[in-house]
Amino acid sequence: MIEVTCTAPINIAVIKYWGKRDEKLILPINESTSATLDQSQLCAKTTVAASPDFTSDQMWLNGQEQSMDSARLQNVLKEIRRRARKRKSDGSGEDRVNWHVHICSENNFPTAAGLASSAAGLACLVFSLSKLFEVEGDISDVARQGSGSACRSIYGGFVEWTMGTEVDGSDSRALQIASETHWPQMRVLILVVSAKKKHVGSTTGMQTSVKTSQLLAHRAEKIVPERMVEMRRAIKDKDFQTFAEITMKDSNQLHACCLDTYPPVTYMTDTSRDIVRLVHAVNNHYGENKVAYTFDAGPNACLYLMEDMVPTMLGLVQNFFPPEQDHGEAFLTGLPSKVSTPSQELLNAIPLEPSVGAVQYIIHTKVGPGPQVLIDQSESLLDSTGQPKSSTQ
Amino acid sequence: MIEVTCTAPINIAVIKYWGKRDEKLILPINESTSATLDQSQLCAKTTVAASPDFTSDQMWLNGQEQSMDSARLQNVLKEIRRRARKRKSDGSGEDRVNWHVHICSENNFPTAAGLASSAAGLACLVFSLSKLFEVEGDISDVARQGSGSACRSIYGGFVEWTMGTEVDGSDSRALQIASETHWPQMRVLILVVSAKKKHVGSTTGMQTSVKTSQLLAHRAEKIVPERMVEMRRAIKDKDFQTFAEITMKDSNQLHACCLDTYPPVTYMTDTSRDIVRLVHAVNNHYGENKVAYTFDAGPNACLYLMEDMVPTMLGLVQNFFPPEQDHGEAFLTGLPSKVSTPSQELLNAIPLEPSVGAVQYIIHTKVGPGPQVLIDQSESLLDSTGQPKSSTQ
Repeated sequence: MIEVTCTAPINIAVIKYWGKRDEKLILPINESTSATLDQSQLCAKTTVAASPDFTSDQMWLNGQEQSMDSARLQNVLKEIRRRARKRKSDGSGEDRVNWHVHICSENNFPTAAGLASSAAGLACLVFSLSKLFEVEGDISDVARQGSGSACRSIYGGFVEWTMGTEVDGSDSRALQIASETHWPQMRVLILVVSAKKKHVGSTTGMQTSVKTSQLLAHRAEKIVPERMVEMRRAIKDKDFQTFAEITMKDSNQLHACCLDTYPPVTYMTDTSRDIVRLVHAVNNHYGENKVAYTFDAGPNACLYLMEDMVPTMLGLVQNFFPPEQDHGEAFLTGLPSKVSTPSQELLNAIPLEPSVGAVQYIIHTKVGPGPQVLIDQSESLLDSTGQPKSSTQ
Repeated sequence: MIEVTCTAPINIAVIKYWGKRDEKLILPINESTSATLDQSQLCAKTTVAASPDFTSDQMWLNGQEQSMDSARLQNVLKEIRRRARKRKSDGSGEDRVNWHVHICSENNFPTAAGLASSAAGLACLVFSLSKLFEVEGDISDVARQGSGSACRSIYGGFVEWTMGTEVDGSDSRALQIASETHWPQMRVLILVVSAKKKHVGSTTGMQTSVKTSQLLAHRAEKIVPERMVEMRRAIKDKDFQTFAEITMKDSNQLHACCLDTYPPVTYMTDTSRDIVRLVHAVNNHYGENKVAYTFDAGPNACLYLMEDMVPTMLGLVQNFFPPEQDHGEAFLTGLPSKVSTPSQELLNAIPLEPSVGAVQYIIHTKVGPGPQVLIDQSESLLDSTGQPKSSTQ
């Protein structure tokens, strides 16, 4: 049995991907840009093993066996094996490529939180398989076929996903535009908003948007290309004013297109909108953009901000979205930080009433590197027979 | 002293007006279509009087004296007087036009409910002044200068507001496309949603949208012109399927453009969105559009539906948005109707949990005629000296 265990990060788009021009190959209708988040706080972890003794491909996710029937999963496996065979055309190790695989995955964060778990999970699977079968070169296009935005989780730092022009999708790939060390002051606060499960999954949501929203087509064709250029420059120049403005505008435009979808798709809740108001009020108070919000296909807010603003924002979030009295878990997780008590002047500038329990908890993190191979064998999620360890859940 | 007392209706757009190309003349960036609502349930009422004894123009709204300084109000008064003089060029009654006016207005519905009170109010003022000074011909362009959508309240039934092409705005007018008797089965339910005051007024909101939303420009230029044609045909053919679909899509697109505004403008709340879900679930259950929602610059839903669906929808609203136990006032006002208890099958088709108190009350009304002159002198809001009657509030 050969095996490898890896972790892969989630990524949070600042220019959003919404809509496919090819459902099978997962080719987007517009380019997108994201930051990859540090894996100490949020990551997917996967062990893949191959053995001549395995009688079938098998997969476990968070302790539960999963069907391997998914077309996307099959495409990913097939493509990795094809590349491995091509590379091993001298014959060495060719037989290993034909062994069945056991895949065991878990997330270190609640899947239900609505974070982009499938992106991290698929990136981790593709990265792990590429290591197991010694595939080299860019594998972001393979990850893309597993789950569109997974391609961006193949790289650390700031990453663009190019649309590509080839019919086979071979040039629709992720590209690092700046590494995780480029803008070291950048911090990320994820405000996990209390909510029931989301109403429409992002795959279905974007399909309906592509079919019905006339605004989405205009966005993809006319607006995003300009924003990509501006955003690239803002990241390279560490220009937070522009970075924040485009990030907020693009998040709003994604959700505008969801609302223009028929029937409309809504992910943001009253609490999400209160967070939007909070951020604009803070920026207005300081006379410059100090914080940027962005929302994916769920009510959680992701805030980008500089390190020196973290204590202030934490204080404001605690003030306006205080945890319930009997809140069992830590309200703040991730990177440690001071929490500043907001000044009365700042509080007066914010047109909100406190909403107890509206934010469940805060994850404090930063921009981080791409997927990692774990050297320590004890990290494996599979036992020596290739079965999930009992402690994986 | 000469005086006249009139009422004027509110109107609810089914293709929305959002954005001015000329702030002073109030010229819109796109055409719009609305239905005028019956005045038995909702109207503005205005008494205007003129007398050589009045020492200044004065105005009272809902019992409170108002400043006459508003540029819009002055424009309206000036234009009505100009037309009156032009008409009286033979000299008869010319002097009356120069008398000061006393204006006393009230609404028969709560202004805070976020209904289009300014449209009804300005339409009523302009209509009343035109009667007082015997101005004839179309006055919708004068009402437009008072408050854009007021021009549509000058006519009953189904009304379009044309953009016009003249620089002076003289051809940006309202036009009745079908009278109030054309589609007699049409009913309207206004669900007044419990909410604090709205965050951004519609005048400011649309200014910011015009300045910052790239989607709004596309909507006005490319999307609305097609919808106007389809909507006109749907109304003429009494095609509720199309009427409902365009109405819902256009409401969603207006709010999408508000969200694409920077900073974003939001009027719909979680309750508004629950009503959207309710309507789509109902239509889905019946396999055709039975109800259409539309939202203006506030969280209240306006539902268009056929008379035979009213008892069912009332039953559903009472089920999913039941009033608080200690709800003092009537939950249903306006036209009387049976309330049907929804079948279990229908209830099962609706993915909502009941939200107690989320809807404050329901106004049941229908499409109605344009402004009316009240013949009964006891209806006057002014006493014989031209002062507000004490009972006006």
